[in-house]
Amino acid sequence: MVFDFASDNAAGIDPRILAAIAACDTGPAAPYGADAYSSRLDNVYSELLGHQAFVFPTPTGTSANGLALGAVCPPYGAVMCHAQSHVVLTECGAPEFFTNGARLVLIAGADHKIRPDALSEALAPFATRNLHRHRASCLSFAQATDGGTIYSLDEIAALAEIAHRHGMKVHMDGARFANAMVSLETTAADMTWRAGVDILSFGTTKNGTMTGEAVIAFDADTAEILRYMHKRAGFLYSKMRFTAVQLLAYLEDDLWTGNARRANGTARRLAAAILKVPGASLAHEVQVNQVFAHLPAKAAEALARAGLSLRPWAHPAGDLYRLVASYRDEEELIRRFEDALKTI
Amino acid sequence: MVFDFASDNAAGIDPRILAAIAACDTGPAAPYGADAYSSRLDNVYSELLGHQAFVFPTPTGTSANGLALGAVCPPYGAVMCHAQSHVVLTECGAPEFFTNGARLVLIAGADHKIRPDALSEALAPFATRNLHRHRASCLSFAQATDGGTIYSLDEIAALAEIAHRHGMKVHMDGARFANAMVSLETTAADMTWRAGVDILSFGTTKNGTMTGEAVIAFDADTAEILRYMHKRAGFLYSKMRFTAVQLLAYLEDDLWTGNARRANGTARRLAAAILKVPGASLAHEVQVNQVFAHLPAKAAEALARAGLSLRPWAHPAGDLYRLVASYRDEEELIRRFEDALKTI
Amino acid sequence: MVFDFASDNAAGIDPRILAAIAACDTGPAAPYGADAYSSRLDNVYSELLGHQAFVFPTPTGTSANGLALGAVCPPYGAVMCHAQSHVVLTECGAPEFFTNGARLVLIAGADHKIRPDALSEALAPFATRNLHRHRASCLSFAQATDGGTIYSLDEIAALAEIAHRHGMKVHMDGARFANAMVSLETTAADMTWRAGVDILSFGTTKNGTMTGEAVIAFDADTAEILRYMHKRAGFLYSKMRFTAVQLLAYLEDDLWTGNARRANGTARRLAAAILKVPGASLAHEVQVNQVFAHLPAKAAEALARAGLSLRPWAHPAGDLYRLVASYRDEEELIRRFEDALKTI
Amino acid sequence: MVFDFASDNAAGIDPRILAAIAACDTGPAAPYGADAYSSRLDNVYSELLGHQAFVFPTPTGTSANGLALGAVCPPYGAVMCHAQSHVVLTECGAPEFFTNGARLVLIAGADHKIRPDALSEALAPFATRNLHRHRASCLSFAQATDGGTIYSLDEIAALAEIAHRHGMKVHMDGARFANAMVSLETTAADMTWRAGVDILSFGTTKNGTMTGEAVIAFDADTAEILRYMHKRAGFLYSKMRFTAVQLLAYLEDDLWTGNARRANGTARRLAAAILKVPGASLAHEVQVNQVFAHLPAKAAEALARAGLSLRPWAHPAGDLYRLVASYRDEEELIRRFEDALKTI
Repeated sequence: MVFDFASDNAAGIDPRILAAIAACDTGPAAPYGADAYSSRLDNVYSELLGHQAFVFPTPTGTSANGLALGAVCPPYGAVMCHAQSHVVLTECGAPEFFTNGARLVLIAGADHKIRPDALSEALAPFATRNLHRHRASCLSFAQATDGGTIYSLDEIAALAEIAHRHGMKVHMDGARFANAMVSLETTAADMTWRAGVDILSFGTTKNGTMTGEAVIAFDADTAEILRYMHKRAGFLYSKMRFTAVQLLAYLEDDLWTGNARRANGTARRLAAAILKVPGASLAHEVQVNQVFAHLPAKAAEALARAGLSLRPWAHPAGDLYRLVASYRDEEELIRRFEDALKTI
Repeated sequence: MVFDFASDNAAGIDPRILAAIAACDTGPAAPYGADAYSSRLDNVYSELLGHQAFVFPTPTGTSANGLALGAVCPPYGAVMCHAQSHVVLTECGAPEFFTNGARLVLIAGADHKIRPDALSEALAPFATRNLHRHRASCLSFAQATDGGTIYSLDEIAALAEIAHRHGMKVHMDGARFANAMVSLETTAADMTWRAGVDILSFGTTKNGTMTGEAVIAFDADTAEILRYMHKRAGFLYSKMRFTAVQLLAYLEDDLWTGNARRANGTARRLAAAILKVPGASLAHEVQVNQVFAHLPAKAAEALARAGLSLRPWAHPAGDLYRLVASYRDEEELIRRFEDALKTI
Repeated sequence: MVFDFASDNAAGIDPRILAAIAACDTGPAAPYGADAYSSRLDNVYSELLGHQAFVFPTPTGTSANGLALGAVCPPYGAVMCHAQSHVVLTECGAPEFFTNGARLVLIAGADHKIRPDALSEALAPFATRNLHRHRASCLSFAQATDGGTIYSLDEIAALAEIAHRHGMKVHMDGARFANAMVSLETTAADMTWRAGVDILSFGTTKNGTMTGEAVIAFDADTAEILRYMHKRAGFLYSKMRFTAVQLLAYLEDDLWTGNARRANGTARRLAAAILKVPGASLAHEVQVNQVFAHLPAKAAEALARAGLSLRPWAHPAGDLYRLVASYRDEEELIRRFEDALKTI
Repeated sequence: MVFDFASDNAAGIDPRILAAIAACDTGPAAPYGADAYSSRLDNVYSELLGHQAFVFPTPTGTSANGLALGAVCPPYGAVMCHAQSHVVLTECGAPEFFTNGARLVLIAGADHKIRPDALSEALAPFATRNLHRHRASCLSFAQATDGGTIYSLDEIAALAEIAHRHGMKVHMDGARFANAMVSLETTAADMTWRAGVDILSFGTTKNGTMTGEAVIAFDADTAEILRYMHKRAGFLYSKMRFTAVQLLAYLEDDLWTGNARRANGTARRLAAAILKVPGASLAHEVQVNQVFAHLPAKAAEALARAGLSLRPWAHPAGDLYRLVASYRDEEELIRRFEDALKTI
C-alpha cells in the first residue's frame, strides 16, 4: 500500500530529466566517465558553487553519505552526528562500511538539530587526545534534517567553527539540499563552503531525477582519495553519461529550485490545513517539504472518507503522521486533502 | 577520443529499455523496492532460471562482483580467480572492499581461462587447513571472459566440482552473460546452477540497459546476507522501480538474446574480415562479441583512410587491438570496416 | 604519577606465574601453539568449564573483546551493550575493527548494568527485520562491570534468554571474571554457558598474569572462525608456550580464586573505612574489587597527609574517586588507608 | 615432533631477558604504557637509530607487519612485495586486515629478493594513475628474507629510490633484523632510514625475547596514525612495562648482536658441513641463520642414526630441507650434526 504524501521518493522522474536522458543517447560515447557529459560535471558545479568542486555521482543518498564520510574519517575516527539522523537510523551501517569501522557518536537535540553546546559537550572526552577513545574526525549533519527542519547559515557556521577548531571535517547530508536552500533563500555557496562545509552529499533524486545523488568535495586532496574509493565501491558507471546528464539537467532552467519551491509550498498548504483542525498540531515547524503532524482520530477518519491515508510515524502518543510533499503532487490531491480536513 | 568498436559500454540505451523506463512512471510508487516492478524481479528470474532466485540490482558490474564475493567469502577467505580477470585487474579492489579484505589468489591459464588442473594446483597449499594461509572460500570465473572466450558447460561443471569438494562456493561473473549463453546455445539454468554456480553477477548494461546489473543468489541463506549487505553498500535505490523495470524489459521479446546474437554475429564478421588480411591473426578464438587481433601496420593504415580507428591493447608485439561489437553497431560501420580491409 | 589503588593493572606478575614462565623454558619447543603447554589449553579449560571449550590467547582484554565480537557479529550486525561499557568507551573502536564495522547500540542503565526491559526496548526497532537497520546479532555485557558491579546468575540468564530469542549470540567481557565468580560464590560453568553465554573474554592479567587474556568459545563452528581470525589478527604467538603456561598456572592451586578473593576483600575493607567518614558515600555497591566513592575534601586531605592519593573519576560533583584493589596490595598500605580516614 | 634446527622460534627466552622481566616487577606501575620502562622506548631506539623513532610494541611479527602496512597503505592501495614473502604466504591476510583490504601485488625474483627492474615492471600499469587499478602505495620487503638471503645497502637504496619516486612508502619486515645487520656489518641506521626505509617491523623474538616485536616509525605523522591503530588493534598492553623491558634489555650489553652473530655462525657451520657431503647443495647462499639445503638420502639417514631429523621443505625434487640456527643451539648438537655428516 502506498500512503498519500508518503515520500518524495515515491514520485517518478521529472519529464525534463527523462527527456535529457533520452537526448544524450546520440551514438557511442567513451565509457566510465570519459564522455562529454560527465566531463562537464566538475565545471558546471564549480560555477554553481563559486568554488572548485569535484563531483562523484553515486547510486543513492546512503552511498553518498557513506562515501563522503569514508573520504574524511579514518577507521579510528569518530563521526559526531544527531541521534535521529539518517546515517544513524536508516543506512544499515553504510557509514561504518565506507569508513572501515569508524564510530558514530550520537548527539541528542530537539527538532533533529545539533546545538553548538551539545557538540562541544560531546567532544569533551576526545579533547585530551585520549587514545582509548577515537579521534574526533568529522561532524555530519543533515540540511534539511529528517525532521523537516533546517539550520540557519549562522547555525551551520557555528557548528563548523567548533568542528574545525577540533581538527574535524564537516559533512553535510544534503538529501533535500534544494528544499533547504530555497527555504533559506540563500545560495549553494553560502550554504556550503562559505559556512564551513568541507564535503557534501548532494541529493537530487527526491527532487526530480531518477538516480542522481553525488558526493561533492571542495579540495583536491579529498578528491584524490574519492577517485579511488568511488571506483572501488563500484560507483563508476560504465554508461556514466546517463547519470551525469541528470545532474546537469537538474540545474538547468531552474528545474531544481522550481521543484523544491513547489514541494515546500505544498507542505505549507498541508500544514495550514492541518492547523485548522481542532486538536491537531505540528511536531516541528514546517521549514521544507515535510510535515510531522499530530492528528485527532476524526481527522484521519475524514481523510479516509476522502480516499486519503497518511503514513503513521512512531510516537508514544500514537497520533503522529509524516507527510512529505513532492514536486509532483497534483493540485487535485492537495485540494482533496484541504477539503477533507475542512469538514471536521 | 572514442575508438570504433571500442566497447559495448559505449553503446547507449536500447530504445525498448528507455521506453520501459518511461512507461513505468505512472504515479507515485512505494520506494526502496516495495513497488510492483521490483517485487516481480525474484519471480521473473526464478522462472527464467528454473530455480528459486534472489535478485539484487547493483549500479555496476564491479559492484555486482564485489557484493557477490562479499556474500560468500569471509575476510579470512581466499578467492581463486584467473590472473587476468576483471576482479583482479580493473576493479580497484572492490572484491577486497566488499569481503572486508579477502585475498585473491591468481591462477594463470591460456585464453583467460582457468583449467581444472591449475585450480587443483592452486588449492594444494590450502588443503591441509594451514592456518597461516587463508581458507579457500570461493572460485570466481567470468563467463564470458575478458579475453572474449567462454567455458563449455562441462568445463564449468568440472571447476565447480573441484570447488565444492573443497568446501568453496562458485561465483560466475556474467558481465556478458547473454553473449556467452547464446554462443553456447544453452539456457540460463544450464549455464548456472545446473553446472554448479552458487552465485551470479548478471550483467545487462553491455547488452542494452542503462544501469541494469544484478547479483543473483540461488539459496535463501545467502540472500539473507545479501539483503543487509546490499542496503549497507547503498544499492537499495529509493526509486528502485526504474532499475527493476530495466531488468524485466531486458528479458521480454527476446531483447537480450537478440541483442547478444547480433553483437556476437558482428564480432564474427569483424574477425572474418581480419583473417583475410595477410599477416593478421586472432589472439583468441572469437566466441562472443570481442575480437583480439594482431594487425599489420598496413591494416591500421587502411582503416584510418576509411575513418576508422581501433583501440590498441597492451602487448609486447605492439600490434594487438581489441574490438568489441555491440548490439548497436550500425551496418554501415561494419561494412566500412570490411571494405577497408579488403583493400590491403 | 601513580595513584594508590589506581588499577589492578598496576600490579606486577604473580611470582607463581613468573616461576611457571621460567620453568617451561626447558629446550626447543614447536612454535605457533604446537607445543605441549599450548596443546593442553583446550582440555584444561574444558574440564574447568564442564563443557567443550576452545581457548584463543590474546595480548589484551581489548583484543579479546574485539576478537570475540568479530567471531559472532557480522559487519552488518548490531551489538547491544551498556552505554558505559569498556567496549564502548575505552577500546578506540576495537569492536568495529574486528567485526569490520558492526554497530554498537548503547543501552543505559544504573550501576553499569543492562536490565531486561531496557534490552527488549532497544531491540524493538530491529524486530521487524527492517533492512534499513542493522541485524541485531550480539548482546555484550561485562561481568564484573566497569562500575564494579556484577550480574546475578538469574540476571545473566534473563538477558541471554531475550538475546537468544532474537537470534543473537551472548558475549561476556570477563576482564574481572574471577572477581565476579568468587563474589557470587559460583562456578565458571554456572556463570557462563549454563546461564546462556556463548562466547567469553576470559581475563587473567588484572588478577596476576603478565599477558594472559583469552577468548573462549563453546562451539566448534565459532572456534573454526576464530582459528583464522586469531592468526590474521597476529595473535598466534611464535613462542606460544610462554603465554599458554600463564593460563595454565593461573588455575593451579587456587591461584586465581585466592587472588580474586584477596582483592575483593581489600575492596570491602577500603569501602568500610570510607563509609565511616562523615559525608562519604559509595556510588555503587562494592561487589568485586572496585570502589567508586564520593569523598569530602577533608578525607582527601587526610589521605594526602598519610602520603596517599586517589584517582579522581569524572563526575559533575567533582568529589568522586575510583579505587581498585589488587591481589598485590600490601597490608601496610591498606592499614595506612584505614588509619588515615579514622582521623577525620 | 620437533625437528632439529627447526626454527629460531623454537628457542626459549634468553635468561638475561627473563631476568629483566623479573627485575622490573618492583611495585605498582602506571598501566597502558605510562610506566618508566615504556616511556624510555622512544628515546632509547631514537639513540640507537640516530633519528627520531616511534616504537609500538606488538605481540607478533605478523601483527607488526600488519600494523606497519596499515599505517602507510590506504584500503585502495597496493603493496608491492615478493611472491614468496611472509606477508603473502604465512600471515592469513594480516596485511589486508590491518589495511582494510589493500592489495598485495606479487613480484617474482630469485633468492626471495625483489630486483629493481622487477619492481619497475610491476609498477608500470599503476603509473598512469589508472583508477581501475589500485594506487601503488607501499613497497614491502624482508631483511633478511624468508629464504635466508639479505639485501645489500645499495640494493635497499635502489628499491627505495624507485618506490619514493612513485610516491610510495618503504616498509622493511625485520623479523630477523639483527641477523641481517651483523651479517652486513652495518648499523641499524644505515640499514633503515639512511637507505630509504620509512617504517620498520623490528623483530626480537627469534633472537632471544619472549614477545618483543615492534613497529618503528620515523616520522610524527605516521606515529600519530599508529597511536590509534595500535590501541584499536588491542596491542596497548595494560602491563606494558613487561614487554617494554624486553625491548630495552635486548639492546644492552650487545645481547642482540651477540645472539645474532652466534646464530649466523652456527648456520655457516651447518652449511659447511653440508657442502662436504657428496651430492649436497645449498638452495641459496647462507647469509644469515637459515640454511636451505638439498640433501641426498644418505645424509638424512646418517643424521637419523645420530638421532637428528631435519624439517623437509616443499620442493619438486623432494630433497630440500630448511635448517634455522638460533642463539640457543648447543655446541653438542652442532657437533653431532657435523660428525654425522662426516660419516657419509
